[in-house]
Amino acid sequence: MQSIELSQHLATIVGADAVLTGEAAAPYFADWRGRYRGDALAVVFPSDTQQVSAVVKLCAENNIAIVPQGGNTSLCGASVPLADGSKQVVVNLSRMNRLRALDAVNYTMTVEAGCKLASLYEAAEQVDRLFPLGLTAIAPHCEIGGNLSTNAGGIGVLRYGNARDLVLGLEVVLPDGRIWDGLRSLRKDNTGYDLKHLFIGAEGTLGIITAAVLKLFPRPQSVATACVAVRDPAAAVALLAHLRATCGDNISGFEIISRSCLDLVFKNIPDTYEPFASKHEWIVITQLADVLDAPLDAALIAALEMFDEGVVEYTVTLDKDRAERWWKLRKNISDAQKIEGISIKHDVSVPIGRVAEFIAQASAALRNAWPGIRIVAFGHIGDGNIHYNASMPDAAQNMAFIEQYEQDVNSIVYKVVARLDGSISAEHGLGQLKRDEITRYKSPLELELMRSIKHAIDPHGLMNPGKVL
Amino acid sequence: MQSIELSQHLATIVGADAVLTGEAAAPYFADWRGRYRGDALAVVFPSDTQQVSAVVKLCAENNIAIVPQGGNTSLCGASVPLADGSKQVVVNLSRMNRLRALDAVNYTMTVEAGCKLASLYEAAEQVDRLFPLGLTAIAPHCEIGGNLSTNAGGIGVLRYGNARDLVLGLEVVLPDGRIWDGLRSLRKDNTGYDLKHLFIGAEGTLGIITAAVLKLFPRPQSVATACVAVRDPAAAVALLAHLRATCGDNISGFEIISRSCLDLVFKNIPDTYEPFASKHEWIVITQLADVLDAPLDAALIAALEMFDEGVVEYTVTLDKDRAERWWKLRKNISDAQKIEGISIKHDVSVPIGRVAEFIAQASAALRNAWPGIRIVAFGHIGDGNIHYNASMPDAAQNMAFIEQYEQDVNSIVYKVVARLDGSISAEHGLGQLKRDEITRYKSPLELELMRSIKHAIDPHGLMNPGKVL
Repeated sequence: MQSIELSQHLATIVGADAVLTGEAAAPYFADWRGRYRGDALAVVFPSDTQQVSAVVKLCAENNIAIVPQGGNTSLCGASVPLADGSKQVVVNLSRMNRLRALDAVNYTMTVEAGCKLASLYEAAEQVDRLFPLGLTAIAPHCEIGGNLSTNAGGIGVLRYGNARDLVLGLEVVLPDGRIWDGLRSLRKDNTGYDLKHLFIGAEGTLGIITAAVLKLFPRPQSVATACVAVRDPAAAVALLAHLRATCGDNISGFEIISRSCLDLVFKNIPDTYEPFASKHEWIVITQLADVLDAPLDAALIAALEMFDEGVVEYTVTLDKDRAERWWKLRKNISDAQKIEGISIKHDVSVPIGRVAEFIAQASAALRNAWPGIRIVAFGHIGDGNIHYNASMPDAAQNMAFIEQYEQDVNSIVYKVVARLDGSISAEHGLGQLKRDEITRYKSPLELELMRSIKHAIDPHGLMNPGKVL
Repeated sequence: MQSIELSQHLATIVGADAVLTGEAAAPYFADWRGRYRGDALAVVFPSDTQQVSAVVKLCAENNIAIVPQGGNTSLCGASVPLADGSKQVVVNLSRMNRLRALDAVNYTMTVEAGCKLASLYEAAEQVDRLFPLGLTAIAPHCEIGGNLSTNAGGIGVLRYGNARDLVLGLEVVLPDGRIWDGLRSLRKDNTGYDLKHLFIGAEGTLGIITAAVLKLFPRPQSVATACVAVRDPAAAVALLAHLRATCGDNISGFEIISRSCLDLVFKNIPDTYEPFASKHEWIVITQLADVLDAPLDAALIAALEMFDEGVVEYTVTLDKDRAERWWKLRKNISDAQKIEGISIKHDVSVPIGRVAEFIAQASAALRNAWPGIRIVAFGHIGDGNIHYNASMPDAAQNMAFIEQYEQDVNSIVYKVVARLDGSISAEHGLGQLKRDEITRYKSPLELELMRSIKHAIDPHGLMNPGKVL
């Protein structure tokens, strides 16, 4: 089929205004950071599931690969076409943005893939419910279909789980264009294999998620926040275990920040201040939230008083603005770092109890190889998930360093991760970025199982090729 | 391979004392209620994963089917061999009962499949943690491998989720005998397809779960319990939504009991009493539990006072014994019913908001067909999961009724379930019992997807054949 003929066919399915080619389509062939740029025959914007189905059928019949795309905010190149000259069509779900149902009694909503995450926060709020997938910075841009396809994480995982934990049912267009209606809103259903968990986190390689039934939660009313200076990451990990045991699972955030992060933030972000009179090497920001009107500050203070294995000092507040000033330190790390130049980034996880070992071992190995290297470590210590970035403090040196040594840095960091039974991609997925790398760390048997499943569901390999596997 | 030769081979793998045949093996070929009885060449009791692997390899090489078995407490015949004369070996995991690791800081434990559920409660308690899979009645008998293979539910689902939600990692012996080591204890790991969710709930048809990393939780310290007389199931459902919104997700139980259940309990179980001075048609028992030392009784009373859509009367207690007397009503329903004779049992679920419709529609249809039919409805209304049993009150009539009309009763009940987008097996699984029935209610496409996956992982169909699919 010629390219023009294909466009005409696609236009009969989705309407002429919903097919872009050539220059008009180009923005959809690159990711938002400009790291990945591919090419495709067209980008189409279906308005409903039937259109997605018809588009996929047409592509499948003509042996054209399909690249599902949402808000295109992937950090690993999962949502853009390959640059290998193969025949591909980008299927952008953004027009499928209806809220199909909102059931406050069942604590569920049924949403289409193209709904912006931020719009789902609002929809839930309007019926006094919470949708807790905590990617606040990117929520106005990312779409729920992409969030589910990458099993997104974020700030709320400690309490509410990853994206997959928030799903009761899915609707998926399969690689041959057929529609699997798995849009159940049941809390319990033991009638065979759990297919939804296969499509969640598959990065669009098994089918296109077109809609989902999501869980809602009650909205917390009371919040207490603590800023805690801790001796080291080991103390932070022990503190978290202690807080869970004494305050329960209402801990809805537990983030660690190193001195190097704080210094970058103070230097580059206006209106940011040391949270304590003295400087500390590591601080933790943690938050206790409850639907009940409970004296959470007293609970936090009591728990912190009881704990003496490495808490240097702490302060607790019920005041929203004061808490927000602390969170500002955490939320601006990436931006503060960007101002200093790029860095070699890692999104890794280890068992929570081994976070301290990971930071110590990886940092020692990197400093041994490159004395003077700047290590910026921070993140969701409550999930064992550390964002661990390395660069040279001198901007002139840094570019050359990254160009020459990125692979070596990765290799050192990932080897420590593997030794500690961790993951080289905690929440960002594999996409194009780590597709080859993962083959060094996953067992051949696990890769074989993944390929068997891929082959069973997408025998012609048309669904988002070159990603994940 | 001759049967004797096979036994000898098996004995070289697991030891002569760990292979039973003939009469000694017979108890393992039937389920605990005696509903299913099959036959197999032998039952083997491997002591570790390597032995399981070697046994499965031997069977696979000789085209002998494998029936994984734990505590053999399945309600659907999933854990016993078929009676069709085919070559089968039962692999009983009970000797694999080591606690491999217990990490209070990471809130995880690594356990082997043959661990009794009750022993896991104890292990967690010893480090001041909770393992919340709430099947208390059967916990001394069932084993965690079976709990995971059937994605068990129970009393704690409302707060802690089903069995699959409690798992971080798995070790599985595949149908060809190879071992998949997925024993990760990570809270976040986005590196490809989530294989563990495929094996959980597969009822042993894709492989044998030999070990798992399980999540632990803090132990609640304060508990308040309410017994609430409600106008009808609709009021109960609305009350739950209201309680979640005002008291939060610390509601750790919400069970409904109908008058017919109460009457059976009072009649047949000693030391049980009406919770109120007047008789009510429907009562709810609900429980609020918190790790924090919070005034939960006040919270429950405030929430109940605020709610006037169908609460007839209520009473709240912090007293354990008083609460236990209420729970006794719920926990003895099955036993009370058994004394009156057998019944046609259903374990169904619908979206929580439709529970009232389900009970009304199913009961109307059954009463229309068989006036005088006794309907015993109770269960986990917080999960939309109703145990819905039908029988004739007259014992003499009842046997004939069940013999003649069981299929018709099922058909009426399941049709209502299907109309309300529910599930015909909420927590018990399919096993042999509902293997055919499910084909009427699941879409052909979903069945096809399940079969494709089965074929990809178990191409020769040797793993627990005749169950699920």
